[in-house]
Amino acid sequence: MIFDFIDGGAEDEVTLRANADAFRRLALRPRRLVDVSRTHQATTILGAPVSTPVLLSPTGLARLTARGGEVAVARAAGRKGTLFTLSTMASSTIEDVRAATDGPLWFQLYMWRDQELVDRLVDRVQTAGYDGLMVAVDVPVVGKRERDLRSGFTLPPRLRARTALDLLRHPRWMREVLAGRPVTFENIADAAPGQVVAVAQYVNQELSNPGATWEDLGRVRSRWSGPLVLKGVMTAEDTERAIDAGMQGIVVSNHGGRQLDGELGALEALPEVLEAARGRVEVYLEGGVRRGSDVVKALALGARACFVGRPYLYGLANGGSAGVEAVIATLMDEIDSTLALVGRPSIDGLDRSVLCPAHPPLLA
Amino acid sequence: MIFDFIDGGAEDEVTLRANADAFRRLALRPRRLVDVSRTHQATTILGAPVSTPVLLSPTGLARLTARGGEVAVARAAGRKGTLFTLSTMASSTIEDVRAATDGPLWFQLYMWRDQELVDRLVDRVQTAGYDGLMVAVDVPVVGKRERDLRSGFTLPPRLRARTALDLLRHPRWMREVLAGRPVTFENIADAAPGQVVAVAQYVNQELSNPGATWEDLGRVRSRWSGPLVLKGVMTAEDTERAIDAGMQGIVVSNHGGRQLDGELGALEALPEVLEAARGRVEVYLEGGVRRGSDVVKALALGARACFVGRPYLYGLANGGSAGVEAVIATLMDEIDSTLALVGRPSIDGLDRSVLCPAHPPLLA
Amino acid sequence: MIFDFIDGGAEDEVTLRANADAFRRLALRPRRLVDVSRTHQATTILGAPVSTPVLLSPTGLARLTARGGEVAVARAAGRKGTLFTLSTMASSTIEDVRAATDGPLWFQLYMWRDQELVDRLVDRVQTAGYDGLMVAVDVPVVGKRERDLRSGFTLPPRLRARTALDLLRHPRWMREVLAGRPVTFENIADAAPGQVVAVAQYVNQELSNPGATWEDLGRVRSRWSGPLVLKGVMTAEDTERAIDAGMQGIVVSNHGGRQLDGELGALEALPEVLEAARGRVEVYLEGGVRRGSDVVKALALGARACFVGRPYLYGLANGGSAGVEAVIATLMDEIDSTLALVGRPSIDGLDRSVLCPAHPPLLA
Amino acid sequence: MIFDFIDGGAEDEVTLRANADAFRRLALRPRRLVDVSRTHQATTILGAPVSTPVLLSPTGLARLTARGGEVAVARAAGRKGTLFTLSTMASSTIEDVRAATDGPLWFQLYMWRDQELVDRLVDRVQTAGYDGLMVAVDVPVVGKRERDLRSGFTLPPRLRARTALDLLRHPRWMREVLAGRPVTFENIADAAPGQVVAVAQYVNQELSNPGATWEDLGRVRSRWSGPLVLKGVMTAEDTERAIDAGMQGIVVSNHGGRQLDGELGALEALPEVLEAARGRVEVYLEGGVRRGSDVVKALALGARACFVGRPYLYGLANGGSAGVEAVIATLMDEIDSTLALVGRPSIDGLDRSVLCPAHPPLLA
Repeated sequence: MIFDFIDGGAEDEVTLRANADAFRRLALRPRRLVDVSRTHQATTILGAPVSTPVLLSPTGLARLTARGGEVAVARAAGRKGTLFTLSTMASSTIEDVRAATDGPLWFQLYMWRDQELVDRLVDRVQTAGYDGLMVAVDVPVVGKRERDLRSGFTLPPRLRARTALDLLRHPRWMREVLAGRPVTFENIADAAPGQVVAVAQYVNQELSNPGATWEDLGRVRSRWSGPLVLKGVMTAEDTERAIDAGMQGIVVSNHGGRQLDGELGALEALPEVLEAARGRVEVYLEGGVRRGSDVVKALALGARACFVGRPYLYGLANGGSAGVEAVIATLMDEIDSTLALVGRPSIDGLDRSVLCPAHPPLLA
Repeated sequence: MIFDFIDGGAEDEVTLRANADAFRRLALRPRRLVDVSRTHQATTILGAPVSTPVLLSPTGLARLTARGGEVAVARAAGRKGTLFTLSTMASSTIEDVRAATDGPLWFQLYMWRDQELVDRLVDRVQTAGYDGLMVAVDVPVVGKRERDLRSGFTLPPRLRARTALDLLRHPRWMREVLAGRPVTFENIADAAPGQVVAVAQYVNQELSNPGATWEDLGRVRSRWSGPLVLKGVMTAEDTERAIDAGMQGIVVSNHGGRQLDGELGALEALPEVLEAARGRVEVYLEGGVRRGSDVVKALALGARACFVGRPYLYGLANGGSAGVEAVIATLMDEIDSTLALVGRPSIDGLDRSVLCPAHPPLLA
Repeated sequence: MIFDFIDGGAEDEVTLRANADAFRRLALRPRRLVDVSRTHQATTILGAPVSTPVLLSPTGLARLTARGGEVAVARAAGRKGTLFTLSTMASSTIEDVRAATDGPLWFQLYMWRDQELVDRLVDRVQTAGYDGLMVAVDVPVVGKRERDLRSGFTLPPRLRARTALDLLRHPRWMREVLAGRPVTFENIADAAPGQVVAVAQYVNQELSNPGATWEDLGRVRSRWSGPLVLKGVMTAEDTERAIDAGMQGIVVSNHGGRQLDGELGALEALPEVLEAARGRVEVYLEGGVRRGSDVVKALALGARACFVGRPYLYGLANGGSAGVEAVIATLMDEIDSTLALVGRPSIDGLDRSVLCPAHPPLLA
Repeated sequence: MIFDFIDGGAEDEVTLRANADAFRRLALRPRRLVDVSRTHQATTILGAPVSTPVLLSPTGLARLTARGGEVAVARAAGRKGTLFTLSTMASSTIEDVRAATDGPLWFQLYMWRDQELVDRLVDRVQTAGYDGLMVAVDVPVVGKRERDLRSGFTLPPRLRARTALDLLRHPRWMREVLAGRPVTFENIADAAPGQVVAVAQYVNQELSNPGATWEDLGRVRSRWSGPLVLKGVMTAEDTERAIDAGMQGIVVSNHGGRQLDGELGALEALPEVLEAARGRVEVYLEGGVRRGSDVVKALALGARACFVGRPYLYGLANGGSAGVEAVIATLMDEIDSTLALVGRPSIDGLDRSVLCPAHPPLLA
């Protein structure tokens, strides 16, 4: 059930697959005999230095995956020198997560119906000293995630243990989830469900604001003094509006294929957004990144960095904070190796000359 | 056997698959931060208001699927506020179905060899007060549905029960079919087979008029005073002729992939028909619609509405009239959700800007 | 072993699959309300009337498949009113086959190394009163049919019966093959192998003439006074030369995917040949025809008729001469049905307006 | 484990598959009635005559595959009259391999970090009388071959025999590997690992020179007086530089898909390299060649010859030196057969007129 909650996408999961498959449509053009004895993947995100262009996406309810949850993830991100983004739907508090790392930290905000709740979140984030605010605008309503419908995923998670033995057979972390502090939306406690509910239904009924508009974004822009990034942009038109609205960054994302099945793979929307942005804001890619070479491809197209979600959650499930570090380290190694093998020692040297379509015509 | 009769298509089922697969070739371009707190999918079909652009196709012999048959379907359509089209090949009478709903109701007519029979049907439909007549022109002969040939599908359905026990093992509805009023073509009783026959063979030999032409359509046009819609148009040329012949609407359809294997998927023929129609008639799509997002795509291309057949029959088989309602409700929910997620609160706002090819080039 | 001999193709069977798959790349554009009460598929082949554009290809050693072999096939073709082509590699004599049918009959000639043998064959065919000669030029050497290499296919077929019981377990026809008159190349008896040999090896070593050129074809042209058709043409260049060499017809063919793996599917080469031929000769298609709609597609592109091989051999294996008739009848029925459903009552009305690419762009 | 070491590629093996699949994207256009009684595939490689355009790639540690290793391969190449290239990573000495054949022999050089080691290798190769030097430039770091990571492939290979019985169950050659002379990098003995190590790790840490540049290649060019060939070029830019650097030949190669997953299939990069080379150097193809027709396709595009690696290693594993000969003979037979069937008796007559895209449009 938890696996399906993390792994699944909306409806037929066409977009979920498109996210990863899109990278296969690009091939890498390697240059040889370039000095790649030192590769360089450190960069800055809106001015803040990070050791790698692999950034960590906001994901909900990480404590379902492993004890520690978002705190463990933030600690791993800090140790590896990269950015973590705490979700509005997190199961750890804004303050606990900030305490877990000195590294760059963003908060992902939903513009809920309850504007006071939103204002309070912004203020807490500001007070806690987060480095940036990412406003996600791709959930006016929650997408139809049929795996959750089938598994009966609820909050708090309801185990179907019919006997004590059954319970013992559940994995340790699951027993901890049950035994310990309940997994809830820690930062929207006022709004958190008092009883067992289906998550999508709860969010749609109690939280979502399908009426949110660019004007509402203006309110956030006024209240928040730091860097502001818009997540979920997939078109040139919205890129233009985001820039007009004073955003410093844009995350090209279809919410990991979890919202509207039938959207392009995120990488497929990246060229359109980049062309519209004309370098005026930083553009990040989220969706389908599974290899260091995927990151290199996105950067070569023009992305500033890539966000990953499921990969670090699997690391978290497997090894807690150390597991997250291992996932980041693997991606960093693969980026180094790819940079060496394409003959571009630094990510600064990546441009479209390193790319070509995966199946060019053989006969001109 | 019944499942194959409903689910199957002609020959190698290439067209059957193309109907559904074609929707995957289009991607949706979402706009964000649009007020979608109220979505709107009500529309009109030739002036008659419907609550949704999901209309119900004519399908033969619905009583094979569940007790109640077409009456149950019509009742569900009426409750959900949408249009049902009764087939010439229905297993319920024109009058019973009309009595079942106050909602918009069309009758689908085949132009049989026996012109008196056709005239009588038109008159009965007119007398009963149907709102429209849909003339299906894609069955000059019955297509080669090999699943039926293999299953030995006949009319009345012949159960292969060798013992009483076998019979008990058949599903309840099947025993009802056997025990109750025989399932026949209720509205063409004079012509209905007196003995066990293969349906395709019976229709080809006794009913079909492969000689029917545009002149014959003119006779129907003269006799019927209400809205007239032509079903089965797949080309620009026939669109032009249909408009010349005084049709008010066109259903782009390959008969659910059941007639000529090798035709385009219906969605693939839609752009050609729309371009030829130049807005002079309403154009509907039938074939392969399985999701609300499929409806949104067809409407964005320019269709007025979509007909669905198999989906409601499966609803009927599962839950009778309530099952049909549930299928309509699910599609309506998905349309609402898709409208919200693409940022077009009303179907009136759908145009080609919401679409792009599913796999755009990544390098310009 | 026999099944693989018939069913298999060269090397990786890429071309074998391309033959059938190519038809899927074309879709049919149906016209409605055309009078199709009488469909018409009779045509002429170089002036000789046939009841259908489905012609029977030459195939080797039909007696391996069923008692009667080529005689049974010729009889079926005659009864259904279509053309049979006897292979040089036949297991029945030229004279026996001629006696079996009054219908149109061609002989397929290989230009062997032994020119006297070739001359004698031409003379026997002329004396027997065959209606046409088809010279196959796509076997300068025998292709690499790996299924035969694996199965150890030899001539005469060697059964691997280790015990009498094993032998009894073999299918009846196989026991007949063993018990009765040995299956050999009846018309090239002088050259036929005196002992057990692998067929490909035997043909390459004893028969093939990789040195045969257009000059050698000129010798055949001089000796044979009737219609002459060249089989195996796949390019515009060879089409031009074939016409210069006095051919009346061309069979576009890759030998059923059995010779050079990597050639185009036959249908894929048809447009090039037709364009080069400019109507000066009749052009036939061989390869991958499995449905009546395949025949309609080839004719709509411009082919005069289609040859089928494997389909009638499977009919022969299943039901002898009657099985062959059933296969021809099925294809004829499908052609009639397709003509009705595309709204072209006669094959004379087929042109490219009935075709479009299988997956046209959805957004112009 | 050994099988995976040979058969595997980097990461997701996308490039590994692209190497072989690319050949399917080209079709062969056969010409008929050409005298192909004598086919001719002998050619010269930088002036040295070879009997076939099938050349043998350098591969590491052949003694893991079968006793004899590189010596057995070189002997087979010599007997069949073709070129063998000894790898820097070979498990046989430069001198032993030279003694095994009078045929053309190249040495493949890595430009290691230890320049003295490189110089010594060049000198030994020159002294031993090798005919050419091939510098591989596609391993600045070793690619991520996940099959090796999973199998725990080390050097020397560590058998996981827990009991003597286990050991007996290992294949004979494996026991020989363990019992006999240890398999090591015979020609870089000074550098060879003294203990059990993962090969990739060892090479990266001890040998590789990611800092190697075109200047370093200049040093090799100066030291080596014979023909010099650059291996691993995949772009027009590097082709130009290679020619400027005084190379006589270029091997288009992605290291058999073992280095950077995401590179084009080698055949897909060939047109770009050939166009840039404009005939100034010989261009060879390495990667995915499995059939004689693959060689014919590469030559028709403009390659001088093809290198094969895995095919001969499988021959070696199956039958030692004779197995290698059999593989070469099979490919040569297939080339002869393909030449006959396309109607080009000599490889000198191969040009792009023998090729077309595998799926040309059917409707112009």
